[in-house]
Amino acid sequence: MNTLQELKDFVSNGYKTYIPHISLDCAIFGYHDHQLKILLMAMKAIKGFCLPGGYIKRTETLDEAASRTVQEKTGISGLYLQQYKTFGNPDRLRWDDFEVEELAKMEGFSQIRNSWLMDQTVSVGYYAITDFLLVQPRPDFFSTSCAWCDIDKMPDLLFDHNDMVKQALQTLRMQLYYYPIAEKLLPKKFTLTEIHAVYETLLGKTLDIRNFPKKLIFLGLLTRLNEKRNIGPHRAPYLYSFNNKKYSRALKLGMTLS
Amino acid sequence: MNTLQELKDFVSNGYKTYIPHISLDCAIFGYHDHQLKILLMAMKAIKGFCLPGGYIKRTETLDEAASRTVQEKTGISGLYLQQYKTFGNPDRLRWDDFEVEELAKMEGFSQIRNSWLMDQTVSVGYYAITDFLLVQPRPDFFSTSCAWCDIDKMPDLLFDHNDMVKQALQTLRMQLYYYPIAEKLLPKKFTLTEIHAVYETLLGKTLDIRNFPKKLIFLGLLTRLNEKRNIGPHRAPYLYSFNNKKYSRALKLGMTLS
Repeated sequence: MNTLQELKDFVSNGYKTYIPHISLDCAIFGYHDHQLKILLMAMKAIKGFCLPGGYIKRTETLDEAASRTVQEKTGISGLYLQQYKTFGNPDRLRWDDFEVEELAKMEGFSQIRNSWLMDQTVSVGYYAITDFLLVQPRPDFFSTSCAWCDIDKMPDLLFDHNDMVKQALQTLRMQLYYYPIAEKLLPKKFTLTEIHAVYETLLGKTLDIRNFPKKLIFLGLLTRLNEKRNIGPHRAPYLYSFNNKKYSRALKLGMTLS
Repeated sequence: MNTLQELKDFVSNGYKTYIPHISLDCAIFGYHDHQLKILLMAMKAIKGFCLPGGYIKRTETLDEAASRTVQEKTGISGLYLQQYKTFGNPDRLRWDDFEVEELAKMEGFSQIRNSWLMDQTVSVGYYAITDFLLVQPRPDFFSTSCAWCDIDKMPDLLFDHNDMVKQALQTLRMQLYYYPIAEKLLPKKFTLTEIHAVYETLLGKTLDIRNFPKKLIFLGLLTRLNEKRNIGPHRAPYLYSFNNKKYSRALKLGMTLS
């Protein structure tokens, strides 16, 4: 959707193409070198920041809708987007009169007051994580910005999006111990120092570097290779890799730790 | 909803009370003594079996809607229902013409062809587990039966409900290692033999009884008590309990295994 005519048509007739009452929102985390960020958008029509989100076409699966939405809103493709929770508190949208009135004054938005877009909506939450140096987000037609924000400096977001980020981060932290999430943020073979930095940053806490790998090795997620990396005189730490076979099996059959 | 008049009103005007295009379905597992079952319903209006499900009132949270639905449909209250995935494949409902025609012939259903109930619907999946001896399910006004079915003998279900059961079971199996799911199926203090039976049955596989508790103890989920149970001459196995403090912390802060 890149023209005003398309936008007008979306407000008037979008419910024929998209399923009303359902949306999706994506918490996209970015990691690099001890830093954790979240991708936020600012829209032309509404003051404040929010997660990239959109509606589900009647012909799409939810996963397809999530990929398309992220691509359209941020320009990013190829993310592994994972559904984590659906949000449906009755007061989650809080369109107050002011916002709707302001929207209605904008060209193309005059019919928005009584449109399908104003009705109660349940939103399916997706999350993803990527190395933020590897992707270049760009705002779409409706947005003034689309950019990485330090997780510690995240402002109050619109709607229930603070709760969405909080719960996405909690899910990511749980899944760090049974999905190969950190794999996308590390080289194929990595040192303990490297994986330790990823885990400390994503978990937002200090981890004992001696005990931490024992747990991942015990769980069968991490394998020590018979290979070292020379990083200086007398400094040649062992290299490690994720045990992908174990992960694939866990993803297929459920994680059973045996 | 217990009368024909209420049913007619639901078909005609239900969209004013409930959010259209969204439903929820509940996979309720039952365990007792090495047996795993699933709660299935047969409805008067449609041939075949399905999970208990319903719609979300505009004033409810999703969790409230799930509790109310299970209570209304099955008579069971007090379950810990957990959201696990939302299902939205475009072809998930497969109302074929035959079914709708049959429905339309039934008293009170004549307007169903063009009603809000026939439109595309995304469904939020919940699951729960209980000791099946502790609850007595009963069918509601719309159903001819509501009963436990052995998980191994589950028939082909209506709609995408086979997939729902499969994914609920996969989630339950993953979460067995970081939520106190088995707690509801065991006494406060239990023997290794008792918890071993629960885990083997829920995971649907054989577990080495010597290694199995080591993993749960390593993960901090299980605590060995300084207490034994006398079950016969020279037979007094140690008792164990779940480490609830660890669990509560994990639920609140994310499972971090340290």
